[in-house]
Amino acid sequence: MTIRKLSRGVALVGAGMSKFGAFPGQSSRDLFVEAFQEMLASVEKGFDPKEIEALFIGNFSSDLFENQGHTAPIMADWVGLTPRPATRIEDACASGGAALRQGVLAIASGLYDIVLVGGIEKMTDLPIERVTDTLATAADALYEVPAGFTFPGLYAAMATAYMAEYGAAPDVFLKVGYKNHENGALNPKAQFGQRIADIMEARKKSAAKKGLPIPEWADEMAFLNDERANPTIAWPLRLYDCSPVSDGAAAVLLVSEDLARRFTDTPLYVIGSGQASDGAIHDRPTLTSLPSAKKAAEMAYQMAGVKPADIDVVEVHDCFTIAEIIATEDLGFFEPGQGWRAVAEGKTARGGERPINTSGGLKSKGHPVGASGVGQVIEIWKQLRGEAGERQLPGNPRLGLTHNVGGTGQTCVVHIFERR
Amino acid sequence: MTIRKLSRGVALVGAGMSKFGAFPGQSSRDLFVEAFQEMLASVEKGFDPKEIEALFIGNFSSDLFENQGHTAPIMADWVGLTPRPATRIEDACASGGAALRQGVLAIASGLYDIVLVGGIEKMTDLPIERVTDTLATAADALYEVPAGFTFPGLYAAMATAYMAEYGAAPDVFLKVGYKNHENGALNPKAQFGQRIADIMEARKKSAAKKGLPIPEWADEMAFLNDERANPTIAWPLRLYDCSPVSDGAAAVLLVSEDLARRFTDTPLYVIGSGQASDGAIHDRPTLTSLPSAKKAAEMAYQMAGVKPADIDVVEVHDCFTIAEIIATEDLGFFEPGQGWRAVAEGKTARGGERPINTSGGLKSKGHPVGASGVGQVIEIWKQLRGEAGERQLPGNPRLGLTHNVGGTGQTCVVHIFERR
Repeated sequence: MTIRKLSRGVALVGAGMSKFGAFPGQSSRDLFVEAFQEMLASVEKGFDPKEIEALFIGNFSSDLFENQGHTAPIMADWVGLTPRPATRIEDACASGGAALRQGVLAIASGLYDIVLVGGIEKMTDLPIERVTDTLATAADALYEVPAGFTFPGLYAAMATAYMAEYGAAPDVFLKVGYKNHENGALNPKAQFGQRIADIMEARKKSAAKKGLPIPEWADEMAFLNDERANPTIAWPLRLYDCSPVSDGAAAVLLVSEDLARRFTDTPLYVIGSGQASDGAIHDRPTLTSLPSAKKAAEMAYQMAGVKPADIDVVEVHDCFTIAEIIATEDLGFFEPGQGWRAVAEGKTARGGERPINTSGGLKSKGHPVGASGVGQVIEIWKQLRGEAGERQLPGNPRLGLTHNVGGTGQTCVVHIFERR
Repeated sequence: MTIRKLSRGVALVGAGMSKFGAFPGQSSRDLFVEAFQEMLASVEKGFDPKEIEALFIGNFSSDLFENQGHTAPIMADWVGLTPRPATRIEDACASGGAALRQGVLAIASGLYDIVLVGGIEKMTDLPIERVTDTLATAADALYEVPAGFTFPGLYAAMATAYMAEYGAAPDVFLKVGYKNHENGALNPKAQFGQRIADIMEARKKSAAKKGLPIPEWADEMAFLNDERANPTIAWPLRLYDCSPVSDGAAAVLLVSEDLARRFTDTPLYVIGSGQASDGAIHDRPTLTSLPSAKKAAEMAYQMAGVKPADIDVVEVHDCFTIAEIIATEDLGFFEPGQGWRAVAEGKTARGGERPINTSGGLKSKGHPVGASGVGQVIEIWKQLRGEAGERQLPGNPRLGLTHNVGGTGQTCVVHIFERR
């Protein structure tokens, strides 16, 4: 496939998100307004929101989660942007990334100069068993679901295949979750922004308060390896290997390259965009790599004219810990089968040679599925502009990458951003 | 809002659709394959389908209708187009039109030369009361639905407002349905492709066969005015005022303007595209016009540089008969309040001065909601190329228009096509 250039460049000049978490009584429109307002406040030089010409809203299934289809014009209405064209973009958990890509294409088309890209999901209103059923609609209803798979099961199959092929032990998955909680603890927007050490201490205190025997865990890994503290969901994946059920919204402002500095002195340029599709998991040559991710990454790198080694900040789709390890290989940061060793050696930690998911990732930050792909962009925005606070990476990072997966890789969207 | 030009032109070079109807045992993927194959066959000069670079799939809610989200990559897979990017576009019943617009923007962006736009919906697997509930998710779940509205009720409110404001009698709505069945009878793809006269005769025969008294209807209007033959659904709308519940798919091939004649000697050029959003119906200044439709039409006419009087072939969104009348006014074919008179005087019939919905419209052809907007394009394709068979309009029509509505007008998408 030839990778052509966009007919004009696109810049990111504003970004905001709601807190991710469980917010009873708030609908996705409330959360979107919160994200929109933070996005407005992030545009240093200010602008009239009425200049926004179109909206692309990533959302997986407000139909099932909120009994609300046709969400895009509602979002436009709630932020005062009626009658601008508003379109919902859906590619399961990659809906946010796909919406960003539509925003980029829309500006490159010449039709719009200023576009709002949003991501929304409100998952916690449903009883948890219906959440599982709803998420299962992102798998193939004729092939994957009738085989008895839920999403933890599908990713557990990938995890066992990875263990068999490369000799990784289940411990290493836990280290991904541990690391992402270390990062998320520094992210005020994170749903589960506690370090594992703090969670462990809280469990001890809670036992003491109830007069129960106080568990003696030698360290955080012992805690994570304890079935009572961290029960198995689908072996080898435990609770702290799985991203949570979340509510949340995120919004970013895209403009044509030539307008960027009217909005901010520190715009980010969208220099690479790749998206690829795939069949369901039963029909793949491998379980230890996502062909769609490799393809999307290849497209994005080629468009951007950069290599994996050039990237400074990376947000990948860690819906499950195994997914993060596979992502780091698919994106070319580590050789196939070496991703787990990199985790074990601390290379992907914030202080390591290849930090992954400084935001806390989906695991700690939360995973409101349609919002997650846009939420990843917020972290790139902050890190590349030096605004990530306590979790800021050193060395003035210049290039950032987002990797957003739908289903078990039926969709993958990769974007590359540059601060110039 | 400034209407800018697309950075390059886009042409329609292939079009196909499945039959619309109720097809037990067939899923939306089967119907999409059927539409795709007819699209391939329609490309006179042939091409390798592997040249297609991306897919945009309009779909309202396979989540609720088929327990299947994340449909776009499945469609790519089933027509052999994995790993090409595949994205679902949702704007309720305007999903097909919105998908077409994304396809147009995607080509104009310079990133793709050849794009497939599809529309799919499989509605008849659900029990009918769940279909009504599912369609209701296209209304506002916080405002319209709790007020007790279903879609027939919402459009009935528009109908009564129209009657009050302009003096139309309910009879005139029935004439829209009558006319669309006259057209649909000439469309082999129509779900209810019978003339009202034929339906009336069939009812008489059925009564005779059952030994029941044979009803004596003076003519088709007497039949349509008989509560037993044509029961009231939501006054003043009766059964034959409402589009049916349908399964179906449609697919069109878009290419960059410069490539068009590699595919066909009779391409159509997408010269106008407009889309607009709106809040829910409780928050509108009027019930007798859709502000989003007027806005979308204005955008499309302006981009195309044509006036309503220039258009030769028109497909409008007649989800209910009142919607067709309002559409013909919003699009500027008739003055506000004159649309009903035009119907009464036969102006919108196939032989009239302003034919509307020569395909049979959603009423007779069927309304598989996510497919309908793309299905409209199939009729324009056939009419402008002189391939509409018995329902072909005379005079070598050159300009065609589609008008696709989501909800009660929270979205409207208008496209204008030209044969050169």
